[in-house]
Amino acid sequence: MKQTTLHHRRVTRRKFTADCAMLLAGIALGAAPRLAAQTAPAPAGPASPQLVEDLVAAYRILADHGVLDAYGHVSARHDRDPDRYLLSRSRGPELVTADDILAYDLDNNPVDDKGGTLRKERFIHGEIYKVRPDVKAIVHCHTPSLIPFGISTVPLQPVYHMAAFLWEGVPVFEIREAAGRKMTNMLVDNPMLGQALAQTLGSKPAALMRGHGAVVVGPSIRMAVGRSIYMAINATLQNQAIGLGGDVTYIDPEEGRLTTLDEYRRGWETWKRRAMAK
Amino acid sequence: MKQTTLHHRRVTRRKFTADCAMLLAGIALGAAPRLAAQTAPAPAGPASPQLVEDLVAAYRILADHGVLDAYGHVSARHDRDPDRYLLSRSRGPELVTADDILAYDLDNNPVDDKGGTLRKERFIHGEIYKVRPDVKAIVHCHTPSLIPFGISTVPLQPVYHMAAFLWEGVPVFEIREAAGRKMTNMLVDNPMLGQALAQTLGSKPAALMRGHGAVVVGPSIRMAVGRSIYMAINATLQNQAIGLGGDVTYIDPEEGRLTTLDEYRRGWETWKRRAMAK
Amino acid sequence: MKQTTLHHRRVTRRKFTADCAMLLAGIALGAAPRLAAQTAPAPAGPASPQLVEDLVAAYRILADHGVLDAYGHVSARHDRDPDRYLLSRSRGPELVTADDILAYDLDNNPVDDKGGTLRKERFIHGEIYKVRPDVKAIVHCHTPSLIPFGISTVPLQPVYHMAAFLWEGVPVFEIREAAGRKMTNMLVDNPMLGQALAQTLGSKPAALMRGHGAVVVGPSIRMAVGRSIYMAINATLQNQAIGLGGDVTYIDPEEGRLTTLDEYRRGWETWKRRAMAK
Amino acid sequence: MKQTTLHHRRVTRRKFTADCAMLLAGIALGAAPRLAAQTAPAPAGPASPQLVEDLVAAYRILADHGVLDAYGHVSARHDRDPDRYLLSRSRGPELVTADDILAYDLDNNPVDDKGGTLRKERFIHGEIYKVRPDVKAIVHCHTPSLIPFGISTVPLQPVYHMAAFLWEGVPVFEIREAAGRKMTNMLVDNPMLGQALAQTLGSKPAALMRGHGAVVVGPSIRMAVGRSIYMAINATLQNQAIGLGGDVTYIDPEEGRLTTLDEYRRGWETWKRRAMAK
Repeated sequence: MKQTTLHHRRVTRRKFTADCAMLLAGIALGAAPRLAAQTAPAPAGPASPQLVEDLVAAYRILADHGVLDAYGHVSARHDRDPDRYLLSRSRGPELVTADDILAYDLDNNPVDDKGGTLRKERFIHGEIYKVRPDVKAIVHCHTPSLIPFGISTVPLQPVYHMAAFLWEGVPVFEIREAAGRKMTNMLVDNPMLGQALAQTLGSKPAALMRGHGAVVVGPSIRMAVGRSIYMAINATLQNQAIGLGGDVTYIDPEEGRLTTLDEYRRGWETWKRRAMAK
Repeated sequence: MKQTTLHHRRVTRRKFTADCAMLLAGIALGAAPRLAAQTAPAPAGPASPQLVEDLVAAYRILADHGVLDAYGHVSARHDRDPDRYLLSRSRGPELVTADDILAYDLDNNPVDDKGGTLRKERFIHGEIYKVRPDVKAIVHCHTPSLIPFGISTVPLQPVYHMAAFLWEGVPVFEIREAAGRKMTNMLVDNPMLGQALAQTLGSKPAALMRGHGAVVVGPSIRMAVGRSIYMAINATLQNQAIGLGGDVTYIDPEEGRLTTLDEYRRGWETWKRRAMAK
Repeated sequence: MKQTTLHHRRVTRRKFTADCAMLLAGIALGAAPRLAAQTAPAPAGPASPQLVEDLVAAYRILADHGVLDAYGHVSARHDRDPDRYLLSRSRGPELVTADDILAYDLDNNPVDDKGGTLRKERFIHGEIYKVRPDVKAIVHCHTPSLIPFGISTVPLQPVYHMAAFLWEGVPVFEIREAAGRKMTNMLVDNPMLGQALAQTLGSKPAALMRGHGAVVVGPSIRMAVGRSIYMAINATLQNQAIGLGGDVTYIDPEEGRLTTLDEYRRGWETWKRRAMAK
Repeated sequence: MKQTTLHHRRVTRRKFTADCAMLLAGIALGAAPRLAAQTAPAPAGPASPQLVEDLVAAYRILADHGVLDAYGHVSARHDRDPDRYLLSRSRGPELVTADDILAYDLDNNPVDDKGGTLRKERFIHGEIYKVRPDVKAIVHCHTPSLIPFGISTVPLQPVYHMAAFLWEGVPVFEIREAAGRKMTNMLVDNPMLGQALAQTLGSKPAALMRGHGAVVVGPSIRMAVGRSIYMAINATLQNQAIGLGGDVTYIDPEEGRLTTLDEYRRGWETWKRRAMAK
């Protein structure tokens, strides 16, 4: 994986030609405020401090739970502009601070002039936000317990109510098919692969990525985080239940449908307190 | 899971009609002290500070051992009124303090005017206390290692003396049967389901709940806590022993009967010291 | 398990009759110094501070590694009197301090007048020291990873050089046979059972105890501790190797014989530093 | 395992006879500067402080991740003299400081006069550096999750992109064959065994050592460390995937080839921060 360093000038120049008005509306670009004001919606301004705080907490919580290690990322849709999302610079999740949070448009171009290295797989986020207006947050992770289910013919299924949202089934993204049966470096590092992943995800809350990890979405940061935590635990427990050798009773789809109202409020309070104290 | 916020006035009003005297005896209700004094036993007063301290320690210890994560709860029967029990507000176990401990009557109505959000599954506690006078403490948990045994046809059995109390057998609560073969949201969030769970538990020290977790009871907080800790470990070890592929020798019922005298005193001292230092 | 509280007077009185001279030699008994001096070897005096410090470290190290939880114990043979051994009071291993270390004679009677609660299973220690002059330290543990091998027909075998001392084979103590095919409370809480365990152990460095745990011995505290740590890891790894489903190559007895010289010096320095800093 | 204490005088004397000029070039030996200067390249001087700092961090990171416990070591090729390497004294990895780093020539003789105990298995390092000019860092570890794959007929294979470098296959070093079908103490503690291990490794990034552990190499400290961390996780996950009982899809060799560019930069920042803060 080569690191993608952001060359602001080059990005700005290219976008100016291709998609000028829309971009200018998004970038706090001192040189052309008037043009932007005329041809695109007024700049949405920064995301609310609460959203940024919650997104930083999400990085820390997911690291604290081992859902993310030094890799992986979580994004949130901008709360004042649905055509943007927030994602941290390329840093280890447990090190992320508010200053590392950058805004992107849905074509995955940064709209902040803050420097630093961009996430190579930001295409995962923009392409899902484009086609899933219900999604407000996305986790991309390499969580260990999920890897076996992404490479096995045995499907991931919900074993307990904390992960009952898995009742809809968990599709597996096969990057070789997405890339036209060609071999890749396994990364979703361009728009085409991002779109293919969004298509595999469909309307589901989560998809596994073969030999790579998973993507988990939600109507809020809290939901995406809680789902990621319990999906990981569920995978471990399903594996153990299979190992016992008897028959296994999974959560019934109807049970899953009836339990999907939890918003992990209590969990969030506990997790945030613990993770931010570290 | 919708959160159940306590509207004290409404609860008080309804209870006044249905079960007036008994309730008034329990609530420190400035407006009607006389009536209460006449028609019900005198108020028991607050539980002993030692009991509250031990209950708070129980939350912390169970969180420290991973028996509880951000969910699950432990209650204790009121030491000055056997018709009441103590249970924390709806908070993450590792955050619970003495101020979060609320008193309930055995119909699971709060008798304290302390505000906050009630546990949705408090019905587990009251319904068991009603039919099990020997029980002084109850743990409800989603402990990971127990989940596989709640969904597998392979029964949980004791593998070592620290969990020898399992010799009586561990019944599995199937909420679909309890609910009249109807699908539920998996939660024991009403009196009928609480009663069905108490019936499944019978005279045993623990029951598994399919796709959900377990309930563990004891003649003291210490016993319920110690049993929960070693039941969880036992599940892991039984799973590993089965995985070896050979024949397994479980604790004999007679051995179990002879070893059930331990009160986990030494464990409690160690666990409490460690958990409260965090 | 009832707790055995030490009633010094009663113990002293009974021993005076039964085994007077030998006992008096060991107890700093103000009332009868002369008699003791005449009929038994002069009192050996306290163990060296270094031995006590190492024994305390052993408790902490074994707790830090999860070899001991809130239960289990480690003893050392007295370095100035081979007919005595040191063992802590009945406390959680991570709480043990030098003040908790008591001296016992090989009949498992305390020779210190320090009060507190005695270990119920001290008989493990004295009976092994009696018949194994080479043994200077003994660990009794309920280490989770060892339990499956104590109850399975699959024998524990060495998988890597750090646990190569297991090449001699690991006998399993079946308490039902030791107790004359009678059911017990699983505890080695009398001399007869302690002797039977010592007999099962024979000349080996370790024995498993069915449904209970293990006993690990060594020519030094460091050796007994290091062996306990790596025996536990070995059990986990053997279990995993078997789980892979292929054929497994164990450490050859000759390899085991050639590698048993390590004294875990480097490990001890690291373990002690980490454990004592907690 | 006897500890090898460095007796500088004896080593120096012997080397003087056998291999005088080369050695003198490496040792800051006040008595014979002229001879050294004439017959060998000028002394390279100390390694850069950055390299030493990174090597110390590598010890701490690998301990923090459980790749190393109290045993195992990591070395780096000297950055100002390719015929030397740096390796710590014989200490627990989490205790290593810059002062513990010693320089060796490729025949595994120390070239610093710093005292302390040498690593008995330093021969692993020198013999690999000799035949692998591309290698700048070497990890030797007893990582638990790797042990099963070193003793099983089931080969270690890559299950996710973070360990895709395993696509080349992981050879297993059988010390009995290396030693001419003779039994050993399992240690690579002489040049002949070091050479045999280097031969088994060949051009690969890692080799397993039967009943012992592994050796992992890289073009930088960061790469060797990152590979060690993810190789260990990969082993756990492959084991779990096999345990599910279905068919498993491994990383394709072509995918592995395409993903081997990552230099674990982001991981290194996170790992170092965490490990050095302990």
